[in-house]
Amino acid sequence: MTGPLRFEISAKSTVCDARVGRVTVPHGSFDTPAFMPVGTRASVKGLLPQQVADTGSQILLNNAFHLMLRPGDELVRDLGGVHEFMRWDGPILTDSGGFQAWSLADTNKLDDDGITFRSFVDGRKLHLTPERSMEVQNNLGADIIMAFDDCPPSVASSDRLRQQRPELAAAHEKQVGQDHHARLVAAVDRTSRWLERCVAAHGRPDEQALFGIVQGGPNEALRIRSVEQIVGLDLPGYAIGGVAVGESSEAIARTVKMTSSMLPEDKPRYLMGVGYERDILTGVRSGVDMFDCVLPTRNGRNGGVFTRLGRIQIRNARFKKDLAPLEPGCDCVACAGGFSRAYLRHLFIAGEMLAPILMSMHNIRHFQRLMVDIRGAIEDDAWSSLARAWPVLEPPAGEPPVAASGPGDPGERSSIS
Amino acid sequence: MTGPLRFEISAKSTVCDARVGRVTVPHGSFDTPAFMPVGTRASVKGLLPQQVADTGSQILLNNAFHLMLRPGDELVRDLGGVHEFMRWDGPILTDSGGFQAWSLADTNKLDDDGITFRSFVDGRKLHLTPERSMEVQNNLGADIIMAFDDCPPSVASSDRLRQQRPELAAAHEKQVGQDHHARLVAAVDRTSRWLERCVAAHGRPDEQALFGIVQGGPNEALRIRSVEQIVGLDLPGYAIGGVAVGESSEAIARTVKMTSSMLPEDKPRYLMGVGYERDILTGVRSGVDMFDCVLPTRNGRNGGVFTRLGRIQIRNARFKKDLAPLEPGCDCVACAGGFSRAYLRHLFIAGEMLAPILMSMHNIRHFQRLMVDIRGAIEDDAWSSLARAWPVLEPPAGEPPVAASGPGDPGERSSIS
Repeated sequence: MTGPLRFEISAKSTVCDARVGRVTVPHGSFDTPAFMPVGTRASVKGLLPQQVADTGSQILLNNAFHLMLRPGDELVRDLGGVHEFMRWDGPILTDSGGFQAWSLADTNKLDDDGITFRSFVDGRKLHLTPERSMEVQNNLGADIIMAFDDCPPSVASSDRLRQQRPELAAAHEKQVGQDHHARLVAAVDRTSRWLERCVAAHGRPDEQALFGIVQGGPNEALRIRSVEQIVGLDLPGYAIGGVAVGESSEAIARTVKMTSSMLPEDKPRYLMGVGYERDILTGVRSGVDMFDCVLPTRNGRNGGVFTRLGRIQIRNARFKKDLAPLEPGCDCVACAGGFSRAYLRHLFIAGEMLAPILMSMHNIRHFQRLMVDIRGAIEDDAWSSLARAWPVLEPPAGEPPVAASGPGDPGERSSIS
Repeated sequence: MTGPLRFEISAKSTVCDARVGRVTVPHGSFDTPAFMPVGTRASVKGLLPQQVADTGSQILLNNAFHLMLRPGDELVRDLGGVHEFMRWDGPILTDSGGFQAWSLADTNKLDDDGITFRSFVDGRKLHLTPERSMEVQNNLGADIIMAFDDCPPSVASSDRLRQQRPELAAAHEKQVGQDHHARLVAAVDRTSRWLERCVAAHGRPDEQALFGIVQGGPNEALRIRSVEQIVGLDLPGYAIGGVAVGESSEAIARTVKMTSSMLPEDKPRYLMGVGYERDILTGVRSGVDMFDCVLPTRNGRNGGVFTRLGRIQIRNARFKKDLAPLEPGCDCVACAGGFSRAYLRHLFIAGEMLAPILMSMHNIRHFQRLMVDIRGAIEDDAWSSLARAWPVLEPPAGEPPVAASGPGDPGERSSIS
């Protein structure tokens, strides 16, 4: 192939913008629409790489910000790159570190040059710029690397903060700026200028595919402006950023549909950090090809089980004597291996490591089975059969979904995590 | 077979009391001398049952005390027993819970009837007797169950307590009793009386093999007295208790040799809670067939790596850039899978769950490889080749062992965990 990424579309829906395809990068291929589990610090928490592969995952994410701080990107480079380091020989995507530098670091300052912050590892003052982000990601060596972008908080998160943590709202608004629209405009233009610097600084363009990121918040004019600036650079793929930063599912759907339709049809589209099953389906129908989310692993570690009928909380007393697997019919290691809800609940209550391990395997497999079925629905234009197999995709009704269960305490209701 | 356990000896050393054999119980067979990893709460921490089996482990331990308190032995029984509960279909051994009830519970009282203590789970006052211990172990359903015994603290631990925690020594001595010998005598006789009650209360003698436990501390006359009382009951196996409770390796070796030689030759001998590689070899040479220890998993979770050259601490800065596996030549999942010391160190420093998982797999495999080689050495009477392959078995010299290593920081010494 010419360049580090090839994208082949093999099927398109006749009723929406969904498509099935295959992305090929130096370390292999993955089917799209794809769900990418998150291995922040070069490990999908608690799982061996083979176990991640066994969930059907074909590509995973690493976090440039975390690996830059610990163990250090130069060290990972010296040890042969992140594939060799973590022993995952399939495709890997790294994010740029910008979002984490801004949101996770203790003190930080954002200006046209980049982001200044203190390392949470050793308190060192660090400066992350488009050039440094490219250097970090070149050192890590992922197949797909992300532009260093300016992703401002959404108005929704401002509103929420004002309600929930009024003591923090003033400082937050000062950061966001009094005029949120002006802040969004500035982020769009800064993201474009930073992208040009990323392209110029990218040291391994033949081995690593750099994706640009569209910003602009919920505002259509700004999304158009961002797309026009970004698409002109003819990159191997494009991401929709500034989504799922606090707004509703409906707002996410509107922004994604509007933005996706403006992106070139022949390049993969990546919706960053999204999300629940319904949000993924909405993205797919708008022509999105790639998704990542920490939900299956993070919720799993806290006892939250994803099922086709909705989420259940395995710590709930109703599962104390429940011999059923987490989800009847599931083919994951936990369910097919015969581990019962009662045993999983015991492991959680006892604080045993095996609990988050089995839960993460189930939850990631849940999302991968969803992607398999979504790809099948696109190929067959069979959306109603998808909805029948996945009740969780239906719009929320008055009643919370209740998962199928074996013998349990009938007086207890399913808890929704 | 008649009864729940068959023991076949296939080879004996001509230079010591070591023997190779095979124990068959309702859920399968295991080769002896055997090392049994510990799965206290029905889980070997962080490992799937298949991963435990992949280390070469053929039998594992569960803890009756912990499972009685949580999730409860009746619940485990109702769910099909501990094999079905944890999805391990090979042999399982449960201890009686007496040692934990005495040593772990907040308040406790020991008398001829049993042990009274408060549950650390819910503060309930509980009473554990020989009869209740049998009921718990019958409910759990392990293949081998242990007598409820009285295991007094050793004099060594009294001495150590006096040196290290003088403020606790007075209370400890009050518990132990002024006259340690009298306490040992009482423990021997009580253990025998309790064993008779265990035999009488054992509800599944055709499905679960009850092992008696010999007490008597380091005192030969008391060990003789204990063996005479216990062996008369003609049980399917015998354990050497009251060892590795604070005394030196030399003291352990003396007690084990003396006790083992008095036990019937045609029954498996189990040395409880021992230990390091050298202690295991000493036990084997005295005719011991079964060992259990938390060292590989507990040390592994804290970064301690067992190697044939001695222990190393993976957190040590010298391993920062070390591309070598934990132990060159090892065939465990971590070493054969190509995970480097540098990566393992990163996982530990970053607090990633995968660190203790990989370390536990390596450390358990280390002990299983030792057992394979020990069985081979017995069959071939080839003790010097065993010592050559396992330098860690040699008596301690002035210098601590240093493990083979790839590139590292030459200014740093290997730390011994």
